[in-house]
Amino acid sequence: MRLRNKPWAEDFITAHPHIVIPNPQDYRGNWGEVFQNNNPLHIEVGTGRGQFVTEMARANPGINYLGIELYDSVIVSALENAIKAGLPNLKLLKVNGEHSAKFFQKNDVSRVYLNFSDPWPKIRHARRRLSHENFLKLYESFLIDNGEVHFKTDNRELFEFSLISMSEYGMLLKYLSLDLHVNQPKDNIMTEYEEKFSAKGHPIYRLESQFVTK
Amino acid sequence: MRLRNKPWAEDFITAHPHIVIPNPQDYRGNWGEVFQNNNPLHIEVGTGRGQFVTEMARANPGINYLGIELYDSVIVSALENAIKAGLPNLKLLKVNGEHSAKFFQKNDVSRVYLNFSDPWPKIRHARRRLSHENFLKLYESFLIDNGEVHFKTDNRELFEFSLISMSEYGMLLKYLSLDLHVNQPKDNIMTEYEEKFSAKGHPIYRLESQFVTK
Repeated sequence: MRLRNKPWAEDFITAHPHIVIPNPQDYRGNWGEVFQNNNPLHIEVGTGRGQFVTEMARANPGINYLGIELYDSVIVSALENAIKAGLPNLKLLKVNGEHSAKFFQKNDVSRVYLNFSDPWPKIRHARRRLSHENFLKLYESFLIDNGEVHFKTDNRELFEFSLISMSEYGMLLKYLSLDLHVNQPKDNIMTEYEEKFSAKGHPIYRLESQFVTK
Repeated sequence: MRLRNKPWAEDFITAHPHIVIPNPQDYRGNWGEVFQNNNPLHIEVGTGRGQFVTEMARANPGINYLGIELYDSVIVSALENAIKAGLPNLKLLKVNGEHSAKFFQKNDVSRVYLNFSDPWPKIRHARRRLSHENFLKLYESFLIDNGEVHFKTDNRELFEFSLISMSEYGMLLKYLSLDLHVNQPKDNIMTEYEEKFSAKGHPIYRLESQFVTK
């Protein structure tokens, strides 16, 4: 995603602490306080402009959603979407997903969404891919038992890598589509990127996998 | 594959008992006798016209190959290929792959190849797919510990089904390509069907998976 410099972004974010949670480490083990209920929490790591997480929150009022995005200039778009939507079950975190262990402990999260993550195509950058073993370990550390990872991408190499990585980690593959255009579930909510990319007719890959608690 | 009636097929097969092994049940637990050595045995279930298994046998003289094909009218082409190739490490079985347990016992086989198997697209025929749980159980019963299944297909639905089926079975995914054209290993040997289909530019899916011995 192209990053534009937005000097007003920081002030805009700070002015909406009820949406972009300012001190997420304070809620580790206690996210129910933020949402004022104990509904399941689903997070999207790398939420971008927030269309996916916003529409998911609208469609599923019984689930709490947290969109995680590092960049000021990107998260402001997600924030604008969230303000417009006015949904009590949608919050954002302006943090680095890599540091999630600071904000979440075991059982805090029921599901992780990874949508069109950076493919980091060079082998020496494999550890930065959000489906790398190190990240799987991180997700497992804060997911509920048998928690799920839902993953979408248009990047073939990243999808191949992710399937192998998850299999080696011992995760169970529950659902798979190698062309989401063709066998799209009717409840598929698209990201901005997915809409653009789908329109070109390229395949979108999707999987749902599950940690297997021993 | 279209089956043509070939009335001469049966006689032709019977006339070559050194290639199409007539009483395979006699060698259960003792395939070394057939090949006159104790090299690893790789089998292809549904060998069709035999190009794959023949070229594999030519390229890997230290491995024994058995091509399994049920239909007279098809296996005769594989037999013609095998006669022309004159390879001591290539044999054929004219049997139904479903009944493999009659011919193989634990540790007889090191690897199973499934190439462009019938996709059996209807859900009520799922049990006939060669990557169905029942077949995986069968392969495991005669493979060595940590034995492998190598699978190629152009059928997206069959590949999706196979990934889920193998994952649920507890198999480990070791290698995966969602477009064998693009990242084709230099030692990829094509089947007749694959050559024809590849030429049209459609993706070929491939995986290598492994049984995990507990």
